[in-house]
Amino acid sequence: MAKNLTTRNEDYSKWYNELVIKADLAENSGVRGCMVIKPYGFSIWEKMQAELDRMFKETGHQNAYFPLFIPKSYFSKEASHVDGFAKECAVVTHYRLKNDENGKIIVDPDAKLEEELIVRPTSETIIWDTYRKWIQSYRDLPLLINQWANVVRWEMRTRLFLRTSEFLWQEGHTAHATKAEAIAEAELMMNIYAEFVEEFMAVPVIKGTKTESERFAGALDTYCIEALMQDGKALQAGTSHFLGQNFAKAFDVKFAAKDGKQDYVWATSWGVSTRLIGALIMTHSDDNGLVLPPKLAPYQVVIVPIYRNEEQFNEVSEVANNLMKELRAKGLRVKFDDRDTQKPGWKFNEYELKGVPVRIAIGPKDIENGTFEVARRDTLQKDVIHKDEVVEKVFGLMEEIQQNLFQRALNHRKENTTVVSSYEEFKKVLKDKGGFISAHWDGTSETEEKIKNETKATIRCIPLDNDYESGSCMVTGKPSARKVLFAKAY
Amino acid sequence: MAKNLTTRNEDYSKWYNELVIKADLAENSGVRGCMVIKPYGFSIWEKMQAELDRMFKETGHQNAYFPLFIPKSYFSKEASHVDGFAKECAVVTHYRLKNDENGKIIVDPDAKLEEELIVRPTSETIIWDTYRKWIQSYRDLPLLINQWANVVRWEMRTRLFLRTSEFLWQEGHTAHATKAEAIAEAELMMNIYAEFVEEFMAVPVIKGTKTESERFAGALDTYCIEALMQDGKALQAGTSHFLGQNFAKAFDVKFAAKDGKQDYVWATSWGVSTRLIGALIMTHSDDNGLVLPPKLAPYQVVIVPIYRNEEQFNEVSEVANNLMKELRAKGLRVKFDDRDTQKPGWKFNEYELKGVPVRIAIGPKDIENGTFEVARRDTLQKDVIHKDEVVEKVFGLMEEIQQNLFQRALNHRKENTTVVSSYEEFKKVLKDKGGFISAHWDGTSETEEKIKNETKATIRCIPLDNDYESGSCMVTGKPSARKVLFAKAY
Repeated sequence: MAKNLTTRNEDYSKWYNELVIKADLAENSGVRGCMVIKPYGFSIWEKMQAELDRMFKETGHQNAYFPLFIPKSYFSKEASHVDGFAKECAVVTHYRLKNDENGKIIVDPDAKLEEELIVRPTSETIIWDTYRKWIQSYRDLPLLINQWANVVRWEMRTRLFLRTSEFLWQEGHTAHATKAEAIAEAELMMNIYAEFVEEFMAVPVIKGTKTESERFAGALDTYCIEALMQDGKALQAGTSHFLGQNFAKAFDVKFAAKDGKQDYVWATSWGVSTRLIGALIMTHSDDNGLVLPPKLAPYQVVIVPIYRNEEQFNEVSEVANNLMKELRAKGLRVKFDDRDTQKPGWKFNEYELKGVPVRIAIGPKDIENGTFEVARRDTLQKDVIHKDEVVEKVFGLMEEIQQNLFQRALNHRKENTTVVSSYEEFKKVLKDKGGFISAHWDGTSETEEKIKNETKATIRCIPLDNDYESGSCMVTGKPSARKVLFAKAY
Repeated sequence: MAKNLTTRNEDYSKWYNELVIKADLAENSGVRGCMVIKPYGFSIWEKMQAELDRMFKETGHQNAYFPLFIPKSYFSKEASHVDGFAKECAVVTHYRLKNDENGKIIVDPDAKLEEELIVRPTSETIIWDTYRKWIQSYRDLPLLINQWANVVRWEMRTRLFLRTSEFLWQEGHTAHATKAEAIAEAELMMNIYAEFVEEFMAVPVIKGTKTESERFAGALDTYCIEALMQDGKALQAGTSHFLGQNFAKAFDVKFAAKDGKQDYVWATSWGVSTRLIGALIMTHSDDNGLVLPPKLAPYQVVIVPIYRNEEQFNEVSEVANNLMKELRAKGLRVKFDDRDTQKPGWKFNEYELKGVPVRIAIGPKDIENGTFEVARRDTLQKDVIHKDEVVEKVFGLMEEIQQNLFQRALNHRKENTTVVSSYEEFKKVLKDKGGFISAHWDGTSETEEKIKNETKATIRCIPLDNDYESGSCMVTGKPSARKVLFAKAY
């Protein structure tokens, strides 16, 4: 069963890298830091996109598309934003190549741009430059826009899906007449992200806000959802920012209220990316390969025929095709792998590696007995199911597996969330166990920085739960209004 | 009814530019040559994408994603390809910005890339560099992949949708074991494009192949679909290329056949872009604004309430909401515009400008009479329809309008396709009437070039119809195997 995969215990990081490659999700390209998302991986992304897009539209958002390039000067307009983003980025300086005397292709020095263009690392600046033209009156508000796009942030150390120089994402950018509306929007989108990640990805998340030092560059408040991976490290799965009037002021976007008064517009932005696929992999998968929740699996069911000769193949195929039809009629995504170029054992391995939630095997014996062998990927359990019951059974397994994956991840998080009261205990838990650590903190950036430097743990979020018990900071002993959540993070 | 739009007769080009802006489809951005696609325009693109994506998948294609950047050296590998593409393109030379002594943001000279990166103008090179790793055996073939992406081709003179430096498109890249299979794939995709453009966009097209000089850089054969715009100019709506073994040889992609022999892989590529939106606009729209075929209209029906006071509004709204429900139950996309910030006349204008196929008005008088006013956008015809018949009527109008638009465009093309036998006649028709001109040509690039230089008309395609009547070239008198199709083109 080893499939030549490194196990998680041996080397979690290596296990992840191998799994991404062997399950045909993605691979590194000839361009440093940029990945190729392979069809199987992209198909998962398409399912994520479809659900998120539906949720965005149901809450009144519309899609649009803004330029890939941003003039350098735009970044200077919002001071904290440029510090956060414009530094590590791809810069376009020329717009033509030519052949030199030897016929070699070189950059044409005569085709230098007057102003350099930055490949967007995020689109606040170009979008707010556009919103100035779109917003005049309260009638134009709220403006609720989303964009599906590629972005580039130059990274020196990259990992497939988790950190790549180019990645795919969506970025929402909204404009509102009041502060309260903008805050409500930022919270709404955090809640939509949480709902998507929990319901479709089966990954439990903690909702919270970021500390000042962890906030998005240009935001007054950053809402986030944080998930815990199997190795005890946290992963930020989505963020939603309340931007105040910062970008409206930087790009001079005002509106006339009903009473005719001019005011700057209030803003939010929010995004999730292909990084979610990394979270999906690291939450559920095991030493046999990928484990996919049925709601996002490209194929939910695979049928593998077992046969020794053409006669048997024809017999088995007929039964398999009928079953496939019945399952498809129930709305399931089913593949019948009738390739004669590979053996059943190879196929079993392959679909385990690729995380297909349910595998059904059919051979001549099964036909004789009127049964099917049904195997669950999440528990690796195999059952022999009578043909009259197989459709209902498999259909029911979809919800059962989805729930089981969520519950398993939730249990893992509960077992790996520790409340500590002293800094000593904090360091010990971090070293021995990892996971989320809930502790009192005095609210200062200095203490936060000290903890980060000494332990590499960061404050993942100030949770939005209702636990407002006060106490004293584990490091300084100063008063703390409530516990916050620490972890080492991806 | 003028809506301050320039009319087509006054200035077709200006009419187009104004229409794109006023119908809220797209606008120019602060980045030279790059457009912002506004929500209304993007919604049309999303509908196009959804249908095309479905058609691609139904024919066995899968989506994937390849890097935005292509190392400069990749372009040198396929000689004709680099001449066709790599010249006018965005070149990334640096990966970092920094603040200079004065705090101004500058490109960090220490962050120069060893090898420049080209923002993809098309992805053959990066994809075939990847396929080398994916293809070893006949078992890996055919490989049928599509990518939805943004691409950049530096343009000096740009027009919204028709020619922009950045645009959105899909690019299919397939690999096959035999020449015959690759040619069949290239033809299949041309046929799928033609089916989409005719059935969904209601734009009739001529299928054909390009002459050698008009072929894609690196292709052995380019299949295309050509449409005729209202001003008598042609627009290439989609292309599908048979690439032979050129890219396989350039990137060393070989496969082992069943008998174990190694051979280079055969390739195709094919694409359509946001340019299709330009074709859609220019084919159907009129001096009152956009005219959208129902199959691609973001809203197919808009209901406008007419009222003088709140009581009337409530009464009208109830009837309108019920009608909306009934129409939606039939699968129609319906909007009830109950905004009280705009008058009915303003709304009528707005939806005419935006090309909504059917407008329904309801006022207190209509309620008294048990009727609705139903207006078609394509013919501007208004009818009073009894409430018992309105749902069926409006539902039926969808197909009727779709067909009428196609038929109107087809008639226009027929009326504007002229067969000529002499070069004099050719020049006269081109000057007085425009449109497609069918004429004999001797098959040489010299003659093609001469015609192009003297008249600005190009050979749009060698049609794939069955008209193989031979004759003599209108310019040189040399033998011609068949007539080809000329036009001035976008």
